[in-house]
Amino acid sequence: MAKTLQTSLSPLAPESFPDMLPVPGVRLGSGRCGIKSSSTKLDLMLAVFDRPATVAGVFTKSSTAGAPVRWCRKHLPKGKARALIINSGNANVYTGKAGDDAVKAAAAGVAKLVGGRAGDVFVASTGVIGETLPIDRIVKALPGVHRKLLAKPRAWHDAAVAIMTTDTFPKGASVTTEIGGESVTISGIAKGSGMIAPDMATMLAYVFTDAKLPADVLQKLLKSAADKSFNAITVDSDTSTSDTLQLFATGQAKHSAITRLGEPALRAFRKALDALCLDLAHQVIKDGEGAQKFIEVAVTGAKSARAARRIGLAIANSPLVKTAIAGGDANWGRIVMAVGKSGEAIAETSLEILVGGHIVACNGAPPPDYDETPVARHMAGRNIEIVVDVGVGRGKATVWTCDLTHGYIEINADYRS
Amino acid sequence: MAKTLQTSLSPLAPESFPDMLPVPGVRLGSGRCGIKSSSTKLDLMLAVFDRPATVAGVFTKSSTAGAPVRWCRKHLPKGKARALIINSGNANVYTGKAGDDAVKAAAAGVAKLVGGRAGDVFVASTGVIGETLPIDRIVKALPGVHRKLLAKPRAWHDAAVAIMTTDTFPKGASVTTEIGGESVTISGIAKGSGMIAPDMATMLAYVFTDAKLPADVLQKLLKSAADKSFNAITVDSDTSTSDTLQLFATGQAKHSAITRLGEPALRAFRKALDALCLDLAHQVIKDGEGAQKFIEVAVTGAKSARAARRIGLAIANSPLVKTAIAGGDANWGRIVMAVGKSGEAIAETSLEILVGGHIVACNGAPPPDYDETPVARHMAGRNIEIVVDVGVGRGKATVWTCDLTHGYIEINADYRS
Repeated sequence: MAKTLQTSLSPLAPESFPDMLPVPGVRLGSGRCGIKSSSTKLDLMLAVFDRPATVAGVFTKSSTAGAPVRWCRKHLPKGKARALIINSGNANVYTGKAGDDAVKAAAAGVAKLVGGRAGDVFVASTGVIGETLPIDRIVKALPGVHRKLLAKPRAWHDAAVAIMTTDTFPKGASVTTEIGGESVTISGIAKGSGMIAPDMATMLAYVFTDAKLPADVLQKLLKSAADKSFNAITVDSDTSTSDTLQLFATGQAKHSAITRLGEPALRAFRKALDALCLDLAHQVIKDGEGAQKFIEVAVTGAKSARAARRIGLAIANSPLVKTAIAGGDANWGRIVMAVGKSGEAIAETSLEILVGGHIVACNGAPPPDYDETPVARHMAGRNIEIVVDVGVGRGKATVWTCDLTHGYIEINADYRS
Repeated sequence: MAKTLQTSLSPLAPESFPDMLPVPGVRLGSGRCGIKSSSTKLDLMLAVFDRPATVAGVFTKSSTAGAPVRWCRKHLPKGKARALIINSGNANVYTGKAGDDAVKAAAAGVAKLVGGRAGDVFVASTGVIGETLPIDRIVKALPGVHRKLLAKPRAWHDAAVAIMTTDTFPKGASVTTEIGGESVTISGIAKGSGMIAPDMATMLAYVFTDAKLPADVLQKLLKSAADKSFNAITVDSDTSTSDTLQLFATGQAKHSAITRLGEPALRAFRKALDALCLDLAHQVIKDGEGAQKFIEVAVTGAKSARAARRIGLAIANSPLVKTAIAGGDANWGRIVMAVGKSGEAIAETSLEILVGGHIVACNGAPPPDYDETPVARHMAGRNIEIVVDVGVGRGKATVWTCDLTHGYIEINADYRS
């Protein structure tokens, strides 16, 4: 079982890890506790808030969600967080009572170091399913990681590295915005890269801000951002048992109190949060297992936004579409097939498909003077744009995915290294 | 675009094409009309009924169904058929008015040769989507094919070959049964092998019998057989725009009249038809694009049969499960994940999973004395058996699929040869 993973850098990876902006009130530490097979790899990260932060979260809809997700769901309603502890290499999923005990022990171990109660510590695990989490190693490593807590950009980079599994590059994004004229920072990290599918608060992503926001407003902001980003991406239609997106707000910014989502002072922050989540989601796709191409599917003219999203995902999840794109094949007939299988209302006689801005189909047939040359040129590139108008209404949605390649098979045909 | 397809025989292929039993009243002919790029390949088949047959059909649920499917749906309610004409190499889908005209021309061409009306001729096309069907070539080839109509086993073999696209072997099955003590024959042919997904009267399959059955009884028999066979298989979750399953009954058998589905005299026939459809469906899976392993997923203990089927398909359609099996990896955690993403009710604490008869998970955790050795041995084989009990009810269902391999990517990353 212990073959070497293909871990060469995704061709869609950014040139470098972004310059991360520290978030006042947040300190991060990372370490090695030996859960990942290679002892040189970071596999534990700790985030500690100087004062209790408000917290929001969206979690996998899987009915076999892991023990950490159950723990977080249970403690989220209080809306308060002192710390966040994440290990990679073992998902602590389907591990029975031992799994629940492990989560409790991790949270208690952190609480002992940072103060507060175990219930204020959020926990996540990512990696192999169904193997008992060696919790002793985590608990033993905690004091060392706690001693090294830092607010510096390097700590953000290391945290992003520590939560990686089959990811080929660490994922982070930072932005400054304002609330009521006062500067506010948002910084986030994420990891993919298999089992990415929408509607599940996909994979692991953690966003931190110094904004001063009550938990209920935070939750609404996060849900709205997730729907347009993490819930609009798909690598392979599979859903993790551990998918988690959380937003922590330390409240150290100087703006005056915000109590409602609708306040105009929140507009810029909301826009910035949406953009940051979309940035992280795109990074996840660009590191999709085996991904060689980044694919955007924009659907218009559907009965509703929901219908448009379903049509978009039918295309984005179609193995036949994804393999055609992997092969650089301008086989748009498969897009027609995928639109058809969505089950949503369409008007075939006014169905229009554009690939890379070129019309490949309109009015129920290929255009009479169709020239495949520019389409083939677009398909040979790294960034593929598909636009589909189904001609029955005004619903629209955009989703993102990657191509389905030999790399996906290689990585997944023998994962448990 | 014109690379060579990987067309080496599937390792799951049967040793030889079965001995087909001619069906009284059915004659078949095949020919080359040059739609497939290689001029040596059969790409046209004609079935003619000596006297009008009764007919049943189930078709793709795609909202972008092809012109031939629309034609068949329109004429099925009459329940009468004189002939069936099928071409491979071009699906005549998303081809506008030209596509509808082509179907009419093919049906009229056949009607002219065999007598009767164009509406009594059923039509199918399979292959590339979105390219105009060169109907002139078909019409021109018809008289030659009509002259060579035969009832012999060889004609059945050639018909099965003529409808192949990326199939690596022709698919057929034959059985004798009885109605009221009188012998009855059922023979069928099918083709896959991409875009196989359930609930769509999957791919092309044509079954013929000399039974004397009214069209409404035939339709019910076929629907019931399809649900347990073609609608319970999946290769890649994609749905063809052309999926068709039809059953033709020539009425030349000697049994006395049957008027209702519930008649005890129909029991043996029904069983034989179900078995034959399952046989053909399994052949389709065994020739799934790139398939190296045949996978059976049996789900029990679900809330309903429908829920069990959804859970089974969540497993069977999971790229992560299918790649793990391709790699011979006993990574049953991915089965837990797939059960979870089905969205169906399960009792995690009594969830039980068996792989090749070995318990890999029970009561919400791996068994304490779990030994992977026999499981790994099973996973190394060609036939994989997964049994899942979700512990909430009495619903059960079995579905079949194949693994997801490099071969699938190879075939589909550049199909349009």
